[in-house]
Amino acid sequence: MPVIDINADLGEGFGIWELGDDLALLDGLTSANVACGFHAGDPLIMRRVCAAAVERGVTIGAQVSYRDLAGFGRRDMDVAAPELTAEILYQLAALDGIARSEGGRVAYVKPHGALYNRIARDPVQARAVVDAVRAYDPSLPLLTLPGSVVHDVADGLTVVAECFADRAYTAAGTLLSRKEPGAVILDEAAVVERVVKMAVDGTVVAVDGAEVALKARSVCVHGDTPGAAALVRAVRAALIEAGVTLEPFA
Amino acid sequence: MPVIDINADLGEGFGIWELGDDLALLDGLTSANVACGFHAGDPLIMRRVCAAAVERGVTIGAQVSYRDLAGFGRRDMDVAAPELTAEILYQLAALDGIARSEGGRVAYVKPHGALYNRIARDPVQARAVVDAVRAYDPSLPLLTLPGSVVHDVADGLTVVAECFADRAYTAAGTLLSRKEPGAVILDEAAVVERVVKMAVDGTVVAVDGAEVALKARSVCVHGDTPGAAALVRAVRAALIEAGVTLEPFA
Amino acid sequence: MPVIDINADLGEGFGIWELGDDLALLDGLTSANVACGFHAGDPLIMRRVCAAAVERGVTIGAQVSYRDLAGFGRRDMDVAAPELTAEILYQLAALDGIARSEGGRVAYVKPHGALYNRIARDPVQARAVVDAVRAYDPSLPLLTLPGSVVHDVADGLTVVAECFADRAYTAAGTLLSRKEPGAVILDEAAVVERVVKMAVDGTVVAVDGAEVALKARSVCVHGDTPGAAALVRAVRAALIEAGVTLEPFA
Amino acid sequence: MPVIDINADLGEGFGIWELGDDLALLDGLTSANVACGFHAGDPLIMRRVCAAAVERGVTIGAQVSYRDLAGFGRRDMDVAAPELTAEILYQLAALDGIARSEGGRVAYVKPHGALYNRIARDPVQARAVVDAVRAYDPSLPLLTLPGSVVHDVADGLTVVAECFADRAYTAAGTLLSRKEPGAVILDEAAVVERVVKMAVDGTVVAVDGAEVALKARSVCVHGDTPGAAALVRAVRAALIEAGVTLEPFA
Repeated sequence: MPVIDINADLGEGFGIWELGDDLALLDGLTSANVACGFHAGDPLIMRRVCAAAVERGVTIGAQVSYRDLAGFGRRDMDVAAPELTAEILYQLAALDGIARSEGGRVAYVKPHGALYNRIARDPVQARAVVDAVRAYDPSLPLLTLPGSVVHDVADGLTVVAECFADRAYTAAGTLLSRKEPGAVILDEAAVVERVVKMAVDGTVVAVDGAEVALKARSVCVHGDTPGAAALVRAVRAALIEAGVTLEPFA
Repeated sequence: MPVIDINADLGEGFGIWELGDDLALLDGLTSANVACGFHAGDPLIMRRVCAAAVERGVTIGAQVSYRDLAGFGRRDMDVAAPELTAEILYQLAALDGIARSEGGRVAYVKPHGALYNRIARDPVQARAVVDAVRAYDPSLPLLTLPGSVVHDVADGLTVVAECFADRAYTAAGTLLSRKEPGAVILDEAAVVERVVKMAVDGTVVAVDGAEVALKARSVCVHGDTPGAAALVRAVRAALIEAGVTLEPFA
Repeated sequence: MPVIDINADLGEGFGIWELGDDLALLDGLTSANVACGFHAGDPLIMRRVCAAAVERGVTIGAQVSYRDLAGFGRRDMDVAAPELTAEILYQLAALDGIARSEGGRVAYVKPHGALYNRIARDPVQARAVVDAVRAYDPSLPLLTLPGSVVHDVADGLTVVAECFADRAYTAAGTLLSRKEPGAVILDEAAVVERVVKMAVDGTVVAVDGAEVALKARSVCVHGDTPGAAALVRAVRAALIEAGVTLEPFA
Repeated sequence: MPVIDINADLGEGFGIWELGDDLALLDGLTSANVACGFHAGDPLIMRRVCAAAVERGVTIGAQVSYRDLAGFGRRDMDVAAPELTAEILYQLAALDGIARSEGGRVAYVKPHGALYNRIARDPVQARAVVDAVRAYDPSLPLLTLPGSVVHDVADGLTVVAECFADRAYTAAGTLLSRKEPGAVILDEAAVVERVVKMAVDGTVVAVDGAEVALKARSVCVHGDTPGAAALVRAVRAALIEAGVTLEPFA
C-alpha cells in the first residue's frame, strides 16, 4: 500500500508581517517545515507554530536558510562552508529547543529557497549542510530533491526525496524551470490528480506527455498561495480516497 | 574554604568585527558568558568559542540579550513578555546546540546589558526570562545581581548572585551608577585586592569607606578592556594565592 | 473655508511581506507617510510608493522610526540623542533621494510608532528628532500630536498638529489610551462623521460626551486595517461634501 | 606632471565595533570611501567620518554594498536589478544627506566587496548600479577597475579607473587572485615604490617581471590592516617627493 507524507512551509511571517495561514495548513499536513528566523520566522512565531503542530500531531522539520530576511532566502549567496555549517546548526538547534519547550522536537531538516537549489548542485555547500545536521543529530533526515548532489555527500545521513504537487516536470524527471511557461500548475483538480498519481504509481506526466518515474516519500505543497489550505485539504482527501496512507517520513 | 567562580563575556564579535581576546580570556576564567547572536556573536564565532571553552574545561553560559545588534543590547527595550520569552529560548537553544556539537553544553544563563539591568527591577521581564529558562531546562541557574527582582519571580529556578571585580559599590551594597565618578576601578592592583576580599571575606569597601557584605558565588570581570586578559590572570593568581578555590557554579 | 490634509502610513511592507494596500490608499490621501526601512519598508518598496505618490500628486513624508524591524518600531527604546539624530537623518535623506529619483521630494517628517509617542513627552529624544530635520532641511515641517513636547523644543522648526480619525479622545483633548475600552472607533459612519466635525468645527466629542476643541491641520487614517482604503474614500467624499478643502499641509 | 588620488575605505565599524583608524587614515587620503550601512557603517559613524573628512578637505565617496552585515558585503549575492538599483540609491542618498549636514557632499560612488567584483563582469548588476547613480545624480563618477564591464554599460556616466597599492598584477594588467601566493604585497617599501611607479610611469611590474601599463586616476590603499595609516603617510610622502600632484578625481 502506498505511503506518502505531505509537507509545506510554515511560520514564514516576521514580526508584524504574516505569510500564509499556518493553522489552516496544519490541519492538512503530516510534516511542517518551520522557518527558523534567517529568511522568515521569529522566535514567537516559531513557538506558536510548534505548539500548534504538536497539538495536531504534525511532524516538525527545520526549514533552514541563508541569512537573508530582505530577500526571503531566495538569493543565491556564496557563504563559506564553515560559516554555513554554523548557521544551519544555529537555526536547527534554536527551532529544536523551541519545539521541545512545546512538547515536540525537530524530526528532519529541509533547506529553503536558494539554499535548497544550491545544495542540489554544489557539493561544498551541500556538505556544509550535511555537516551541520550530523553535528546536531546524525539521525535527522534531510529532505531534498531526488538527484540532488546532497545524496553524494550525505556521509551516512538519511536523505529523503520529495516531489512537488504543483510543479511541471521534464522528461528527465527534473523540475521545469520557473522561467518556462506552465512551470507552475494552477488548476486545483490537475494538481490533486497529479499528486495521487505520484503517490500511487510513483510517476508523473512530464511536459512532453511522457510518463516518468518519480520516487518520492513526501510531496511538497506550496503554502503561501491564497488557496493553499483548501488545496492541501483536497490533496489529502484524494490521497485517502485512493487508498494512500498519509504518514510522516520522520 | 572560600569558593568562587570567575566569569566574563565572550564571543562578542560579529562577522568581520572582533571584540576582546576570547582565547586569552578563556585561559583565566572558570565560566564564559557566550553571546548568542542577538547583541553580538554569530554562529561561527559561537562555535569557535564553545570549542575553545570545551578544550580548556571552561563552563559555558548563554549570554542572552535583547535583539539589538546596532546598540549592542545596551538600550532598554519594551519587549512584550511572550516575545521576550521566545527570544531568550531561541538564543539559549541555539547556543546549547552549538556547544553540544563541540562536546560541551550550556550550563547557565546570564542576561546581557540592558536586559540584565531591566530584569533586576522589572518583574514582568524578569519573569519572561525565567519562563524561557524553565521552558528549556529548569535545572539551569540564572546568573544575576544580588537583590535583583529575579529572585522574587524565580519560581523554583536557581538564581546565582555575582559581584563585579572593577565596579565601586554603595554603602547599601549596590553598584555605584556608572554616571558617578569612580564607578569603574581602573587600577589593576586595587581590583585584584577587592576580588580577593570579596571571595575570602564576602565583603567590599563601599565608596563611603564602610565595609559591606557582598554574598556572591561568582565574580564578573569585564572582557572588553585592553588589559582584560592580564587582569583575569592576576585575579586568578591572587585568589589561588589566598587559598580560594576556583570553581564554576554550574 | 476649512482646510484639512488626510495622511496615512504607506510602504510598510518588507521584502516579500506586504502590509496594507498602498495603491488603493493613495487614491484617497493628500499626504503619504512613507516608511524608511528602519521599522518597515525597503528601498524597492520605497521607490514604488514614491513613484505612485508622485503620479497621483500625493505629498510624500518621511515616516522615520527606531531601528526595530522585528518590533515594527512599536517598542520604546532608549536611544542616545546623537545616535537618534543620525538615524533620523539617514532615513530622511534616503527617502528624499529615492523620492527625487521619481520626480518628487520629501515634504515633511512624521515619526512612527514608539518614537512618535516618546517624543510627545521626552524632550531629549524630541530634540534629537528636531535636530535631524533641521540638519537636513529646516524648512521641513514635523507632523505630531497637539500638545507634544516637540512644540517646546522645535527651535524654529514648523510643527504641525494632527488628529486621528478613528481614535477616541478624553475631555482634555488627548487620545484615550488603547488599553481603555472604546479607544478605537470601528464604525465607519461614526469615523466619517467625527472627521467632518474635526475639520469643520475643529472639535471632537470626547468619551464623556463633552465637545472639546481639537486644532489639527491634518487627520491621520490608519492604513493597515482591512477596510482602510474604503474608509479613506468615505472620509474624503464626506469632507468634500461638507465643503472642506482637501490640501496637503506641506 | 602626474596627478593621482589616494582612496581608502572608511567608516567600516558598526555600533560598538570598530575597524581601522579612520581619523589617522583621513590625514593621508584625498578621497574617503565611506560605508553606507549595508555592509558596515551606521548613521552615527557615517556622520562622524563625514564631519572629519569635511574638516580635513578630504573628498567623500559612497561605498555602497550588498545588504550583508554578517558577511561584510564580501559574499556574492544574486540580487535582482530593480532591487539592487533601489538599494544603491538608498545608500547613496543616505550618505549624501549626512555629508551635507556636515557641510560636505558625496562626490563619487565606489561599490564595495563582492559587488565591486561582480559588476566588473556582470553587465546586469553593473547596469543596475549605473542606473542608481544616474537616478540620483548623473554627474557623480563611479570608481572601479580598469577593464570592468561597468565601462560598457555606463550610459554616459563617468567611470574612473583605480589601481591597488598592495596587490600583485598579472601580465595582462589584471589583479592576481587572492588565492595565489604573493597576491598581497606586505612589504611597505615595495608598496610605496610601486605606487610611485604607477603614478609617475603609469605602469606596474607584473608577477612575471614584465612592465605593464596601468592607467588609473586613483590608487586604493587598504585601510583595515594594522599599519594602514603609516603606509598611507609613506605613500603620500613618496608621491609628493616624486613630484606627483595629489588631487581627488571628483
